[in-house]
Amino acid sequence: MTLKKILIVSGTHGNEINPVWAVNQFSKQNSTIDHNIEYKYIIGNPLAYERCCRYIDNDLNRSFNFNKNNSNINSYEISRANFLVEKFGVDGSDPCEIAIDLHTTTANMGTSIVMYGRREKDFCLAALLQNKFGLPIYLHEKDEKQTGFLVEAWPCGLVIEIGSVGQNLYDPKIINRFLIIMNSLRDEINKLKNNQIILPKSLIVYVHQGSIDYPREKNGNINALIHPERIHQDWKPIKKGYPLFIDMEGNTKTYKGEDTIWPVFIGEVAYKEKNIAMSYTKKEVINFSNQICVDFF
Amino acid sequence: MTLKKILIVSGTHGNEINPVWAVNQFSKQNSTIDHNIEYKYIIGNPLAYERCCRYIDNDLNRSFNFNKNNSNINSYEISRANFLVEKFGVDGSDPCEIAIDLHTTTANMGTSIVMYGRREKDFCLAALLQNKFGLPIYLHEKDEKQTGFLVEAWPCGLVIEIGSVGQNLYDPKIINRFLIIMNSLRDEINKLKNNQIILPKSLIVYVHQGSIDYPREKNGNINALIHPERIHQDWKPIKKGYPLFIDMEGNTKTYKGEDTIWPVFIGEVAYKEKNIAMSYTKKEVINFSNQICVDFF
Repeated sequence: MTLKKILIVSGTHGNEINPVWAVNQFSKQNSTIDHNIEYKYIIGNPLAYERCCRYIDNDLNRSFNFNKNNSNINSYEISRANFLVEKFGVDGSDPCEIAIDLHTTTANMGTSIVMYGRREKDFCLAALLQNKFGLPIYLHEKDEKQTGFLVEAWPCGLVIEIGSVGQNLYDPKIINRFLIIMNSLRDEINKLKNNQIILPKSLIVYVHQGSIDYPREKNGNINALIHPERIHQDWKPIKKGYPLFIDMEGNTKTYKGEDTIWPVFIGEVAYKEKNIAMSYTKKEVINFSNQICVDFF
Repeated sequence: MTLKKILIVSGTHGNEINPVWAVNQFSKQNSTIDHNIEYKYIIGNPLAYERCCRYIDNDLNRSFNFNKNNSNINSYEISRANFLVEKFGVDGSDPCEIAIDLHTTTANMGTSIVMYGRREKDFCLAALLQNKFGLPIYLHEKDEKQTGFLVEAWPCGLVIEIGSVGQNLYDPKIINRFLIIMNSLRDEINKLKNNQIILPKSLIVYVHQGSIDYPREKNGNINALIHPERIHQDWKPIKKGYPLFIDMEGNTKTYKGEDTIWPVFIGEVAYKEKNIAMSYTKKEVINFSNQICVDFF
């Protein structure tokens, strides 16, 4: 049986420091090779990490859209994305079959799994983790404004997103959650390798529908806050008439849609520049056969 | 009776955005002149605020040490410090007699008052606020590594420090606390103007003694976290043997001093670059006469 390699990325955003610490600690306490699976650990954006900022020129986690990248060859992150794929991509010099990208958020999302599109192997891996911990799964797809995520450059990959924690702030509780996830990921991947998997028949996912920006002045300045009833309430459904924002005069802006939605990334600091006050999802039940994990590797 | 002017500064650190919002909201809801006192509102570091970072070249709130400033004339913040004093200083073109500088911290300090040195008028103002809300007072003095604070450039001035809140994160609760403080400050300053003041006979202050850095590797990288029993425990006394840090192997570094100390700014994100994991204080009771506030203005 050949050696399989799995890439664990932390610090894809340089100011998300808890995953970097957790990976460092985990790699010191665990062997690199486990049951014929080799784990490769890398800091996604080392320069941004050194400078304690999210990125240098562009968001690295939107830089893996190689069709669009030709125009911006001087970007540190585009170069870095190319390097990561040329080295660790499936056709790279040190090829990995799965990429796990560890992130934190300033939003109150708890521990969650983010998937990009509907790839069978991703569902399989996500299902295993959800089965173990009951983690919510955020399925990001069909958003033209947000493309080029790191894990999309691998045939299988997930983001683990844990919050809330401030940028550049070490939090032992957040680090501990990453350690638990990394431990479990190993166990589950070992089972996958040995085909000892009983998958659930269905999976609940929160499917990305779009994003809502802050109310802004003409000059772009934010002129209303996320409503006190909405802040920190990630994953909790909202219906027509529920408050979203409140301005300085106390005027409330409410949700006008007819459908129930589940907001996520509420108030994420890094998304202000992307004109996102929160993203919103709809709940969907995905049914799938037990077959898909049998030939995982 | 002549018009007295008071300067309210927010955004001295560009990524502390809640005070900027609160001042903006407050100034819209309240008249600029109140009982013959005029309030001037200014963003301390507008360029850093625009760029969502703490500062451009130097920490503005360490840039009011004008003896040292000659060497660094190209710094945006040194220029800005000069501008602020030339405009709003007591000998400036639009002179203010008191400066109130509004800050947030990522540490769990609640609402607190920071004083720099032992100036009578500062004590007076601090006593009034403490009397009303029971806020802890952090008296910063005699630290050669940290000088040149904004309010020191005015004959009277305090910092209001509120946390915990992440950098660049809007938090309605934090904004609300600033609004309450600004309202009360007006009331108390009006009383000062009319000499309707009964001051307490004594004041409890937490006097700065020094700071403790993170354990670090030779290359400067932090290699231990603030201990889970210490994080978020600002203002709570610690004694010899109490845990301070924990490294990746689980080794604990404890407090070795003989005296009880009260730590503050525990884990403040912005202080990592200053080699400060926490500062520590000792409790002191200051006795003062009721006379000092009679001739405040």
